[in-house]
Amino acid sequence: MPLEFAITGTDGAARTGVLATPHGEVRTPAFMPVGTLGAVKGVPPAQLRALGAEVMLANLYHLALRPGVDLIEELGGLHAWSGWSGPILTDSGGFQVFSLGHLRQLDESGVTFRSHLDGAALHLAPEDVVDLQRRLGVDVAMVLDECPPWPVTHEAAAASLARTNRWAVRAREEWARQPGPGGLFAIVQGSSFLDLRESSARELAALAFDGYAIGGVSVGEPAAERRAAVEWTTPVLPAERPRYLMGVGYPHDIIHAVACGIDLFDCVLPARNARHGVLFTRGGALKLKGAAFRTDPRPVEEGCGCPTCAQVSRAFLHHLLRWDALTGQVLATLHNLWFYLDFMREVRESIASGTLTELVSRWSI
Amino acid sequence: MPLEFAITGTDGAARTGVLATPHGEVRTPAFMPVGTLGAVKGVPPAQLRALGAEVMLANLYHLALRPGVDLIEELGGLHAWSGWSGPILTDSGGFQVFSLGHLRQLDESGVTFRSHLDGAALHLAPEDVVDLQRRLGVDVAMVLDECPPWPVTHEAAAASLARTNRWAVRAREEWARQPGPGGLFAIVQGSSFLDLRESSARELAALAFDGYAIGGVSVGEPAAERRAAVEWTTPVLPAERPRYLMGVGYPHDIIHAVACGIDLFDCVLPARNARHGVLFTRGGALKLKGAAFRTDPRPVEEGCGCPTCAQVSRAFLHHLLRWDALTGQVLATLHNLWFYLDFMREVRESIASGTLTELVSRWSI
Repeated sequence: MPLEFAITGTDGAARTGVLATPHGEVRTPAFMPVGTLGAVKGVPPAQLRALGAEVMLANLYHLALRPGVDLIEELGGLHAWSGWSGPILTDSGGFQVFSLGHLRQLDESGVTFRSHLDGAALHLAPEDVVDLQRRLGVDVAMVLDECPPWPVTHEAAAASLARTNRWAVRAREEWARQPGPGGLFAIVQGSSFLDLRESSARELAALAFDGYAIGGVSVGEPAAERRAAVEWTTPVLPAERPRYLMGVGYPHDIIHAVACGIDLFDCVLPARNARHGVLFTRGGALKLKGAAFRTDPRPVEEGCGCPTCAQVSRAFLHHLLRWDALTGQVLATLHNLWFYLDFMREVRESIASGTLTELVSRWSI
Repeated sequence: MPLEFAITGTDGAARTGVLATPHGEVRTPAFMPVGTLGAVKGVPPAQLRALGAEVMLANLYHLALRPGVDLIEELGGLHAWSGWSGPILTDSGGFQVFSLGHLRQLDESGVTFRSHLDGAALHLAPEDVVDLQRRLGVDVAMVLDECPPWPVTHEAAAASLARTNRWAVRAREEWARQPGPGGLFAIVQGSSFLDLRESSARELAALAFDGYAIGGVSVGEPAAERRAAVEWTTPVLPAERPRYLMGVGYPHDIIHAVACGIDLFDCVLPARNARHGVLFTRGGALKLKGAAFRTDPRPVEEGCGCPTCAQVSRAFLHHLLRWDALTGQVLATLHNLWFYLDFMREVRESIASGTLTELVSRWSI
């Protein structure tokens, strides 16, 4: 199997381990910074590595539009082109089926996007999506799915899910016919319905994917529904394969999911919030553009090991975020990504030492 | 004297040496990256140091408006506030007398700016300008001068120059009364007039400043006039003190000035051009947003030691500059600053080894 996954420790349902990919190992539970277009905004690849990131997420839909998969393949694949030599997971475009709702049409054959840039049509069949990710040379490819909006009726969710699972079968067959260098993950949908989540997880597990994702969360649903979806779905997924909760989230949501047995996470939150001047700390988020920080000589977080806290005060970061967006956004992003990656280190250590419960209680809200 | 300047080698009129400041040594000839608001746009202090920068330039006028000198002083001075622990030179606001022409009024007492941000009035007397720089704790403070526009009549240039030199006397006296931790540089004006440049240089030299700048260039004049001003003025300036050519410029202008005996340079060009996608190379500037670079797998410059060329191709930088401004501008800025700083290393080595003529002929246009 191209993706070896070794669980090295457990604490309740939580596990810590190592996912070995063609481009290196990822210690789990892991957070994957989002580099939609091939780079995390403001963070060149060497700096991303220096922050402790072991895997980056990119987005097939966006890369297919610009610069196009043909070009990336011609230039040696996504790793060579982007300069990020570590493991890469690409999202399939399924989330864009949700987020670009007015710009796409779905039918049994797949999805047709109207480019959000120039309106050009882009048709993606489930087979195309895995082929394109194979040609990008990614370590983890995702199947094409439909991510329904929230709320949705049981009937609509069931119909959508049935098609998503038929697409997963086609993707699995295509991948078996011509596999990529890495692995292929399935995506469990089913919205807020226990029966759909469970049946989908069982159906997909039977297809022996390299890993399994929980999708259809972070689409506007209440936290309790998001958590329920994780609690229902995770135990049904094969224990020996990596599990990925897509697009989640805040630390308190991540740690809840870790306790349920999730291994991989991605979210735009740390980088996007940073660009808006919102900095994460263990004491809560700070809105650094606020006047109170103008004269605050302390680092963003006392004791933080990030390059930002080592270099500048809250006062100077406040000044930069207000008047020098480029430098301010870069420094804020470095802090927030460090915060998330450091939090995941703490999560892994807690599982290894059997003290996750304490960490969960410290972070739960 | 707070600024020790040791000349360690010469080649014709060119010299190489070391300027020792309260915050460390600067090898000359040196290029000072421009951090108008306390940081070079997109380059946190540790990265600026890693690029090889030994001194940064900031701007009193801009810092006086935001966040204000009171606040910076309260937070420990410009070094502590900005996180840049190396030497800092601040421009006095004289260039803004030129660039914000419609927003300021001049009289014998000094200059009154209307803030370009909110219209608030800011009056700066020559004495205020040195006091404010002393309170910032900078290593090199500049006198307040009037930078006349180009072209200007001899009569107007002479009148402006006379006032600038009267201001210099007042600044020198104020600095003697209450000196800052570093040194104070005078600024020679005189536009394109040989007699004015020479008389101004003689007058200021007699006042025993810690260093001397040539101002009033890079204001729209033809290259030949700019070069003539340098050729006329430099020999009149005290040989044992550092000489600074303000706001210049392209490498071919810098190397001409070095050959005349200039030691310090600053310019927004490398960083500003980078943000617009124009990258410097020894083979000429590349407009990286051009379609030709979309598929170019080479680094910006073969053999370049900068972090950008080590990480990404022209093709990926083209993609970022078009679609991910934050990352693209950061990577482009890193390359261009490295290019300038590396060029100055080459300049220093050429002077030390007596081979500057070869370098001049390679760079002259």
